[in-house]
Amino acid sequence: MGWAIALHGGAGDIPRAMPPERLKPREAALHHCLQIGVDALKAGRPPLDVVELVVRELENNPHFNAGKGSVLTSNGTVEMEACIMDGNTKRCGAVSGLTTVKNAISLARLVMEKTPHIYLAFDGAEAFAREQGVENTDTSHFITPENIERLKQAKAANRVQIDFTQSTPKAGEKASVTALDSQDGTVGCVAVDGNGNLAAATSTGGLVNKMVGRIGDTPMIGAGTYANCYCAVSATGKGESIIRATVARDVAALMEYKGLSLNEAAAYVIEECAPKHTAGLIAVSAKGEVTMPFNTVGMFRACATEDGHSEVKIWPDEQLG
Amino acid sequence: MGWAIALHGGAGDIPRAMPPERLKPREAALHHCLQIGVDALKAGRPPLDVVELVVRELENNPHFNAGKGSVLTSNGTVEMEACIMDGNTKRCGAVSGLTTVKNAISLARLVMEKTPHIYLAFDGAEAFAREQGVENTDTSHFITPENIERLKQAKAANRVQIDFTQSTPKAGEKASVTALDSQDGTVGCVAVDGNGNLAAATSTGGLVNKMVGRIGDTPMIGAGTYANCYCAVSATGKGESIIRATVARDVAALMEYKGLSLNEAAAYVIEECAPKHTAGLIAVSAKGEVTMPFNTVGMFRACATEDGHSEVKIWPDEQLG
Repeated sequence: MGWAIALHGGAGDIPRAMPPERLKPREAALHHCLQIGVDALKAGRPPLDVVELVVRELENNPHFNAGKGSVLTSNGTVEMEACIMDGNTKRCGAVSGLTTVKNAISLARLVMEKTPHIYLAFDGAEAFAREQGVENTDTSHFITPENIERLKQAKAANRVQIDFTQSTPKAGEKASVTALDSQDGTVGCVAVDGNGNLAAATSTGGLVNKMVGRIGDTPMIGAGTYANCYCAVSATGKGESIIRATVARDVAALMEYKGLSLNEAAAYVIEECAPKHTAGLIAVSAKGEVTMPFNTVGMFRACATEDGHSEVKIWPDEQLG
Repeated sequence: MGWAIALHGGAGDIPRAMPPERLKPREAALHHCLQIGVDALKAGRPPLDVVELVVRELENNPHFNAGKGSVLTSNGTVEMEACIMDGNTKRCGAVSGLTTVKNAISLARLVMEKTPHIYLAFDGAEAFAREQGVENTDTSHFITPENIERLKQAKAANRVQIDFTQSTPKAGEKASVTALDSQDGTVGCVAVDGNGNLAAATSTGGLVNKMVGRIGDTPMIGAGTYANCYCAVSATGKGESIIRATVARDVAALMEYKGLSLNEAAAYVIEECAPKHTAGLIAVSAKGEVTMPFNTVGMFRACATEDGHSEVKIWPDEQLG
């Protein structure tokens, strides 16, 4: 028993040849956000507050695909979604189709706390945000030059892309031109305190060149986000695969119904349930265990536990910074 | 082994004193829709076609809360949602926030078959519907006088209602005035053929007086709708409870991970996972078993199996007509 925290900045086929100017800010953000979460847990803040705090920070960072830095729909717009869930009560909140709300994760929490519903989307979610007075901004705030370029490349290739899909360069085209696709991703955080209180949060801009109105796994309870009294899970990758495999709920269901450990359950879901090259997840258990498996080339991730273990990694092995 | 089919028209606290003019058309619709499904299965049509066909018929019937007859949001508008899923492939499609599409379930199937996504919502879903040329209609088509009255009552009581919640009459008010609340509901169908091919479909107008933008359990894979190679499930009731309990996925997960039978798994979810008075479900297994448990006062439901068993019921015991 003890506190534990894990966070991710997306999973996918992240090229190992990532240039330092792209690698370094992401690496720094993982360290920074992990520290924020650890400090909050050490200060005794509830895991629900901790995951919201960390995801807000990741949303505000333009190097990840959530909040500022969200990828663009086929119309060149942003449609952000997020979900938060408390393990012991199974209370949860979700939002989709946000265009002006600075921190989608905080609006998801307000849906949970201030409405009789779990999930609000599009115009209704924006109206609720205005009614609640949450911070909003012109939609251009979220759009980065990199994502305009990503959309252009995706349209040229007539492709809907998963977070990090590395496109195949056309004949005569430099690989570096398309390497842009591989450097952003959904964000998420899971945390548990020393009393076994669990929480999960996930936030995303979705897929590059997605159809307007597309909803992915992130806001779907049991797919991209889930927490109960056994564990808290946030998944990332190809949303459609994660939805079909009910990834987050299945980690918990394997613990609850089959008696597997957190490690065994998460490994089973990533190896046996989600198709290869589509998914990663972070999870913590009520006992303070942590696991971060993925079946993609890499996953931006970080974790820490009360007993002093700490990791910040992208690919399977190398510890960063 | 053999074919089996089950359908529902919503679960809730359906008053046993329902007057014949309200009871009879619903009873007739259950018989009629069951026959359509049975005939289609006997004719060798795939379960995916069968569940779509039956749910379309239920959507077109104004006595159930889906398609024509959908309940109204707090703004007096309709926002319909639906989901369809194929068991063997786990392919699925979902839609939310429809205002002009006559048959939401057929648009959900088109999302599954014609897009790289699973789930489209609100304006994007309506735009996709127009692009696909599906039948649409003026939004007034869906709005019935009964639902205008239901919304009025709900607003008077300052209440968001579950499908059949029977409101408490105020002092001096006749109970019959508020009995309206109790007579509509989400619709769904599950079917299996003699080769164990499974499919599930659910469609709804949601909750009376729901907030604009509210998404419920119906389109959420694993909550209101789910199918895999073990079983197909469609749930109905209080959406927020069904989402938290991941009702449909858990029936399948208990079979897959705990080795329970269809009956045991469905009974466990309804008795142990979903809070009392909130949920019902219909489910068929790959072996041709069928179950229709609920923890509400009643559930409009019907089923038939290849071996000649057939039921049309609302409350726990009495066989209708």
